[in-house]
Amino acid sequence: MSSMSATPKKNLMLFSGRAHPELAEQVAKHLDVTITPQSAYSFANGEIFVRFEESVRGCDAFVLQSHSAPINDQIMEHLIMVDALKRASAKRITVVMPFWGYARQDKKHRGREPISARLIADMFKTAGADRIMTVDLHTAQIQGFFDGPVDHLFALPVLAQHIKRTYADHDLAVVSPDSGRVRLAERWAETLGGTPLAFIHKTRDPRKPNEAVANRVVGEVEGRLCVVIDDMIDTGGTVAKTVEVLLKDGASDVIVAATHGVLSGPAVDRLSSSGAREVIFTDTLPIPDEKRFPGMTVLPIAPLVARAIHEVFDDGSVTSLFDGNA
Amino acid sequence: MSSMSATPKKNLMLFSGRAHPELAEQVAKHLDVTITPQSAYSFANGEIFVRFEESVRGCDAFVLQSHSAPINDQIMEHLIMVDALKRASAKRITVVMPFWGYARQDKKHRGREPISARLIADMFKTAGADRIMTVDLHTAQIQGFFDGPVDHLFALPVLAQHIKRTYADHDLAVVSPDSGRVRLAERWAETLGGTPLAFIHKTRDPRKPNEAVANRVVGEVEGRLCVVIDDMIDTGGTVAKTVEVLLKDGASDVIVAATHGVLSGPAVDRLSSSGAREVIFTDTLPIPDEKRFPGMTVLPIAPLVARAIHEVFDDGSVTSLFDGNA
Amino acid sequence: MSSMSATPKKNLMLFSGRAHPELAEQVAKHLDVTITPQSAYSFANGEIFVRFEESVRGCDAFVLQSHSAPINDQIMEHLIMVDALKRASAKRITVVMPFWGYARQDKKHRGREPISARLIADMFKTAGADRIMTVDLHTAQIQGFFDGPVDHLFALPVLAQHIKRTYADHDLAVVSPDSGRVRLAERWAETLGGTPLAFIHKTRDPRKPNEAVANRVVGEVEGRLCVVIDDMIDTGGTVAKTVEVLLKDGASDVIVAATHGVLSGPAVDRLSSSGAREVIFTDTLPIPDEKRFPGMTVLPIAPLVARAIHEVFDDGSVTSLFDGNA
Amino acid sequence: MSSMSATPKKNLMLFSGRAHPELAEQVAKHLDVTITPQSAYSFANGEIFVRFEESVRGCDAFVLQSHSAPINDQIMEHLIMVDALKRASAKRITVVMPFWGYARQDKKHRGREPISARLIADMFKTAGADRIMTVDLHTAQIQGFFDGPVDHLFALPVLAQHIKRTYADHDLAVVSPDSGRVRLAERWAETLGGTPLAFIHKTRDPRKPNEAVANRVVGEVEGRLCVVIDDMIDTGGTVAKTVEVLLKDGASDVIVAATHGVLSGPAVDRLSSSGAREVIFTDTLPIPDEKRFPGMTVLPIAPLVARAIHEVFDDGSVTSLFDGNA
Amino acid sequence: MSSMSATPKKNLMLFSGRAHPELAEQVAKHLDVTITPQSAYSFANGEIFVRFEESVRGCDAFVLQSHSAPINDQIMEHLIMVDALKRASAKRITVVMPFWGYARQDKKHRGREPISARLIADMFKTAGADRIMTVDLHTAQIQGFFDGPVDHLFALPVLAQHIKRTYADHDLAVVSPDSGRVRLAERWAETLGGTPLAFIHKTRDPRKPNEAVANRVVGEVEGRLCVVIDDMIDTGGTVAKTVEVLLKDGASDVIVAATHGVLSGPAVDRLSSSGAREVIFTDTLPIPDEKRFPGMTVLPIAPLVARAIHEVFDDGSVTSLFDGNA
Amino acid sequence: MSSMSATPKKNLMLFSGRAHPELAEQVAKHLDVTITPQSAYSFANGEIFVRFEESVRGCDAFVLQSHSAPINDQIMEHLIMVDALKRASAKRITVVMPFWGYARQDKKHRGREPISARLIADMFKTAGADRIMTVDLHTAQIQGFFDGPVDHLFALPVLAQHIKRTYADHDLAVVSPDSGRVRLAERWAETLGGTPLAFIHKTRDPRKPNEAVANRVVGEVEGRLCVVIDDMIDTGGTVAKTVEVLLKDGASDVIVAATHGVLSGPAVDRLSSSGAREVIFTDTLPIPDEKRFPGMTVLPIAPLVARAIHEVFDDGSVTSLFDGNA
Repeated sequence: MSSMSATPKKNLMLFSGRAHPELAEQVAKHLDVTITPQSAYSFANGEIFVRFEESVRGCDAFVLQSHSAPINDQIMEHLIMVDALKRASAKRITVVMPFWGYARQDKKHRGREPISARLIADMFKTAGADRIMTVDLHTAQIQGFFDGPVDHLFALPVLAQHIKRTYADHDLAVVSPDSGRVRLAERWAETLGGTPLAFIHKTRDPRKPNEAVANRVVGEVEGRLCVVIDDMIDTGGTVAKTVEVLLKDGASDVIVAATHGVLSGPAVDRLSSSGAREVIFTDTLPIPDEKRFPGMTVLPIAPLVARAIHEVFDDGSVTSLFDGNA
Repeated sequence: MSSMSATPKKNLMLFSGRAHPELAEQVAKHLDVTITPQSAYSFANGEIFVRFEESVRGCDAFVLQSHSAPINDQIMEHLIMVDALKRASAKRITVVMPFWGYARQDKKHRGREPISARLIADMFKTAGADRIMTVDLHTAQIQGFFDGPVDHLFALPVLAQHIKRTYADHDLAVVSPDSGRVRLAERWAETLGGTPLAFIHKTRDPRKPNEAVANRVVGEVEGRLCVVIDDMIDTGGTVAKTVEVLLKDGASDVIVAATHGVLSGPAVDRLSSSGAREVIFTDTLPIPDEKRFPGMTVLPIAPLVARAIHEVFDDGSVTSLFDGNA
Repeated sequence: MSSMSATPKKNLMLFSGRAHPELAEQVAKHLDVTITPQSAYSFANGEIFVRFEESVRGCDAFVLQSHSAPINDQIMEHLIMVDALKRASAKRITVVMPFWGYARQDKKHRGREPISARLIADMFKTAGADRIMTVDLHTAQIQGFFDGPVDHLFALPVLAQHIKRTYADHDLAVVSPDSGRVRLAERWAETLGGTPLAFIHKTRDPRKPNEAVANRVVGEVEGRLCVVIDDMIDTGGTVAKTVEVLLKDGASDVIVAATHGVLSGPAVDRLSSSGAREVIFTDTLPIPDEKRFPGMTVLPIAPLVARAIHEVFDDGSVTSLFDGNA
Repeated sequence: MSSMSATPKKNLMLFSGRAHPELAEQVAKHLDVTITPQSAYSFANGEIFVRFEESVRGCDAFVLQSHSAPINDQIMEHLIMVDALKRASAKRITVVMPFWGYARQDKKHRGREPISARLIADMFKTAGADRIMTVDLHTAQIQGFFDGPVDHLFALPVLAQHIKRTYADHDLAVVSPDSGRVRLAERWAETLGGTPLAFIHKTRDPRKPNEAVANRVVGEVEGRLCVVIDDMIDTGGTVAKTVEVLLKDGASDVIVAATHGVLSGPAVDRLSSSGAREVIFTDTLPIPDEKRFPGMTVLPIAPLVARAIHEVFDDGSVTSLFDGNA
Repeated sequence: MSSMSATPKKNLMLFSGRAHPELAEQVAKHLDVTITPQSAYSFANGEIFVRFEESVRGCDAFVLQSHSAPINDQIMEHLIMVDALKRASAKRITVVMPFWGYARQDKKHRGREPISARLIADMFKTAGADRIMTVDLHTAQIQGFFDGPVDHLFALPVLAQHIKRTYADHDLAVVSPDSGRVRLAERWAETLGGTPLAFIHKTRDPRKPNEAVANRVVGEVEGRLCVVIDDMIDTGGTVAKTVEVLLKDGASDVIVAATHGVLSGPAVDRLSSSGAREVIFTDTLPIPDEKRFPGMTVLPIAPLVARAIHEVFDDGSVTSLFDGNA
Repeated sequence: MSSMSATPKKNLMLFSGRAHPELAEQVAKHLDVTITPQSAYSFANGEIFVRFEESVRGCDAFVLQSHSAPINDQIMEHLIMVDALKRASAKRITVVMPFWGYARQDKKHRGREPISARLIADMFKTAGADRIMTVDLHTAQIQGFFDGPVDHLFALPVLAQHIKRTYADHDLAVVSPDSGRVRLAERWAETLGGTPLAFIHKTRDPRKPNEAVANRVVGEVEGRLCVVIDDMIDTGGTVAKTVEVLLKDGASDVIVAATHGVLSGPAVDRLSSSGAREVIFTDTLPIPDEKRFPGMTVLPIAPLVARAIHEVFDDGSVTSLFDGNA
């Protein structure tokens, strides 16, 4: 006999960085697995160390980390985990980043800028990632930054279902807070059953070219419950101004819906005092208690992520989760 | 003495595929160089052969090919030229593609689709390209598909200057033909001096989800000369319908401006009979006489491309050509 | 429990481009599978689009495309299919190209030429191919152009068996149509049982160096049934002249056998009027009815390709299919 | 004439991240250049943005960043600068990292650990670095982690010269604080003119395997001025204990010399109260005033770095700076 | 039905180069497999040829070759075997090199030197290696030279157990033959139960900088049985001098233990006449009978290698073989 | 002023391994440079060490090594030199291998074989080679194995000129020693002015398939001075048999011409006693005095190599050296 034979097993293992343990716990629960125990700590100068406490040899690894603040630490920890998995002989490594850090820097807006979203993709490839799973990219083209499969999940059904249930008897209009999200608003309008569409046109004084002088609503909003949508809300400035101008223009009420609650700096203040009736996020990023306020709703993303991980592990169809739209 | 020393020269050489020789000639003229002579022919089964007639060793090569129909032949010829330059020891190879083929397939619109625009970038990298120069990408994110410098030139100033000169005394409005180009329309509106903005909202019958039932104008167009803008016009269907609905909604007149005149199949018929007063392109793609009609204006792109090539060769600033926006 | 376990399945899926659907159907039939349904169409400007209608996640994909005319379209479709499979998480991608496009450009014949056969290999690697399966390469060295396994199948047994059966009682001689195929002719001579060997020596007038002035038969052919062999026949010029000179030199009759019937331009006319008694091909490339003529025999390659695919899927030995010669 | 010729220029440009502007200023001064102006800021969620204010096309870029705390931010900024330079057509990019972050994680100490020092090398390669310049690596093998030239500078002559001058009339001994730095101590001993050598042997209670029970001095230190050397001092624990045990064992006095003053957490307290007569660093890392104490000496590294940059730009010999030891 | 399904098998196959067939036989015996038969021979000019006699398609290949003298032939044979396995569709290729050739050249000791240990890693990657298994690297950082998993096995337990058994009632001291192995000696001291530690300090005459003038013992050795340890012994010069100086300094007796017996040139003479009581190696490298002498002990490494191969094949934990230290 | 400018110099440096110092000396003389001094030696176990004695920073390096026996040592030394040059910042590295080792293994002759000629190409790429220069490849397709420029020089003019001068008044015929070199023989026949052509047909006994039973001359040789040509002669068996059968078949005399004199084992005996009137080589490989015999002519290749190096350095045309055939 010249060889030794065996029937291979495949083995899903879930790993979590330290950015958003609650989300990892919920995903684990939905998958009915436990998170692989690991030692992870930061040295005094900020260097991060990770070591897995169990053998990971041959496993199908899903490595979950939210790219929340302090974002560079979270990304570096994520990369180091992938490196450790590669060197410890994981069979396949799927990087799960519910929020893709640096996604906004997806092009050179002007000369001599980086394209950091591509850099992120390349760094994960270099570290050893075979695939990426993510939710609601800032632009869908970012999928193409990674040389391999990207499972791009959509939170829109989760958010829209909540709105449909809550505001079933209202006349809705969907509003994009700027000219770059109108396509997304159109998809929302369709999902909500064919509502009107509007967007905010930022106009500038031609004599002061880099300064917006007015935010003009383009489209019909009067008397309607306006749903301001976006992929992420960071400092909340644009959205707060949008709410203000909509109310001034006669909207009956305004709600805000976005997938990623980055919520930096003045965001919570601005949103809670904006006049919006409800602000809705998913928990792709951790939203700690001190950032929550009455009128904020946070919907769980774990069911979606867990189902997608299960399909990937099982070689099922992730596309089918989204009505052929992944 | 153990070595031989010399002062290096750098040497710009211009190469042109067979897709758009007129453009190459004009670029050569603006640069005051001649196109490097080459043998290029297609075998009976369509295989393409290229050979340069002069030594290209050590040159700074700029390889110009428009990705016009038959597009796969043009792309393959472009790739083969790059391969031949690499193997013949060109020092640096800049691929000049005024129109980036397959740019529309820049993401997976649904599952199990290719991202062909990334594939194009990777194939040129594989063939030996060091850099890419292109005009008005379908989405700016495509820059990030190439692992190296991309000089992204803008035709907007060329097109806008023509409109400003021709229609100086009209009340203009800029119109995006769909929800995905509103950002571009906003940039146009600003360039034209702060005009109003509108776009066409495609609504669907909720009972027939994949069928557009109406094209609704969102924004004010009544009594205005509407400028419908786009990056490219292929079969002309969307634009023709846009013209129609604008006129119906009370636009005083409509003109159409796009960088790339792909002009496939019924495009010429549709455009010439659309009711548009003028249709304006640049010649990034060849527009043969039989596709031209009264009311079509074709503006030369060669001055822009030639200036950019000169700056690249000379290590000057391409950004400065575009007011800091390249 | 920290992980989820399962026994993996492996799953052969067959994909076919639009170049040669009959061959794909026959391969599918021999394998007892169906071709994976897909949408594939060309846009008006020639851009190709492909989308698979079923989940391909985790499959062992075999992607069949003949590189027939229009060859650049067929190759681009092939590449795009591979890209889509990679991004849709196929586990392993085997590119099946019964005829390897651009195989003739396998070296720089003179300076400043491309090596397009290597470019083809690299582009499939870039798109995501793990392995290549092909039939009768123009030169066997092309295997080494791909960085990975290449299953190189031989049609010689298929062709030779037909000749042995049909011309069992003739005195045969094997003839190479030029000096570069004598090694192949020797292999044929051995397979046919030790026949004599000849080749055509193209001589040139030393005063007109690039012009062949005579085709001289080197070797004994008088009174024999000559089998002119080649890997492919494109325009048929060389082969037709070979038939002519052999008959003039006293061959009793001539038959022609080649694996790949490229059959461009005047090929059918030349072959049908060449005086050859029979012209034999396999159907690695589609040979439509209008290119067929009395005296042409087309042998099916599907059984060979299907057996090889099955062995690859099953981790069996492809070498064993060819008596240790793959 | 078919081409345009010019004599190339080469152009040194110096870039600095925000970690250690004083060092960059000093290096610039020694080189007689100015630091290239750039915009660099952090978004509210920590994402870093960089843009250069001048054209960098064709330049020979030297990108200086100290990997000080918060280290992951400094590294990410460094990477993003390199990406921006690559995309802006810098001709050659030399990454200058006076302290190589994560250098301590240069191997798997136990199973399932990352090798983060290699990850750092690969990430800079991925971002676009052509070469790296660094000072006193934790282990010299780290040079081999980068696939390209690494200029490894030595601070030992700078430190040793200070000690020789200051303590010319003392009987010195060189002491390694643990068993892993004895080779380095030997090099010091030789540089200081052939002093004796000692090291601290950490012994463990065999019944409590992971706990050091004693630090034993191996070698002669009695009556001597001991020079405790190391490549870096982080929290200062090991070094403080070393000073203590040396004094207990009869050392006449103790000084401490290390290249990199990481100086995290309790380091300053420990060092200033350790009983050491002098603690000497270079300023490869910023040492702010609040971390300085009487008895601390900080020697400038800028002259060394500037000379090395000049040699690299000028294709001179860096090796010659170090007596053939780079 | 559109696809064909099967349950995959995994299949361990063991391959051996011609360097150390005895070791391969022992590993095979421990694994209860046979070595895959192959043809391997050298052409008259030294070119090596390898062909496997059985199908290797889909196998989990372990390719064992000791990098013994003539080392470049052994390495080239090893690389050629990996290339052949890659091209023959092995599923995974683990390179087993009990001794990693060129490991001593793991850094540039001075300028303009190669880092050959990294070159070895890269060449195996290029040839097709997925993973490497090795024993007692010269420095552990070499793991990081390979971009993939490295299983680093330790022979120390094997060697130490022999010493503990043989010299249970002696007062031991562990001695590093130079300043660069003191860390390793410390690990030995701990394994042997907390013995004292010493090393040899090579001092130089400051007037003749490149010449060692004295080997000074640092640490207590008088009256003790000294265990001189090293990772490899090549020509034996350093170790023989170490034995001599230890005996002169009052050691009661000396034994020598090293993992790799390179044993070039005068090594056997020097060791056998050094005065050492016992010299202990493992057989990671072949030690032919003519190199053996009374007082030499060769311990088998096959059990360790076989267990590690089994764990890798079985996705078990290699780390667990070494108490968490691999 | 923000930057430092300078005019770059380019600097040709010539490096030579230890395989064929005479050739390197002659090339240096023709170029009027000296070989860069280096330390190169082999350790006792065969490991090779190389260090350059002068700064190579920024140079245009040409690294010459003949792949003569012991071939694996020569190749490894060549690779190590390239690695050292890369790490020492050479600007461009051209590998000059007058004879490309392992060129005969340029395809899988049967299943489960390596393609070692491609492995050689990849290893030099991995080590850092930018370009390759070589003479008379075994098959021209090997050019395509390297991903970069290959300057393929032809010795045929050198050899043919000698024959034309020496045998001006003879009736020549060119003979290929087997069926695989007939194309090369045809090129010779043309160069010699249109001589007849013949080759040796090896026939086999169909009952003993792997054994040649006869060597039959195909073509006219009677009364002619036959020139047996080949790219290399290794053990000389095939050529000696060819001489014998030609003389038996009535050749008036026989001469042998080949580029590469590998001359292993019995080659010299066979050639000197074969009955050939003259045996002609170039000195791409060293031919020591003890291998020379009356009737052997060795022509210098250095003038050709030196001219090609000069053209490469000077960005001139190598193609022009060969009348458009490189």
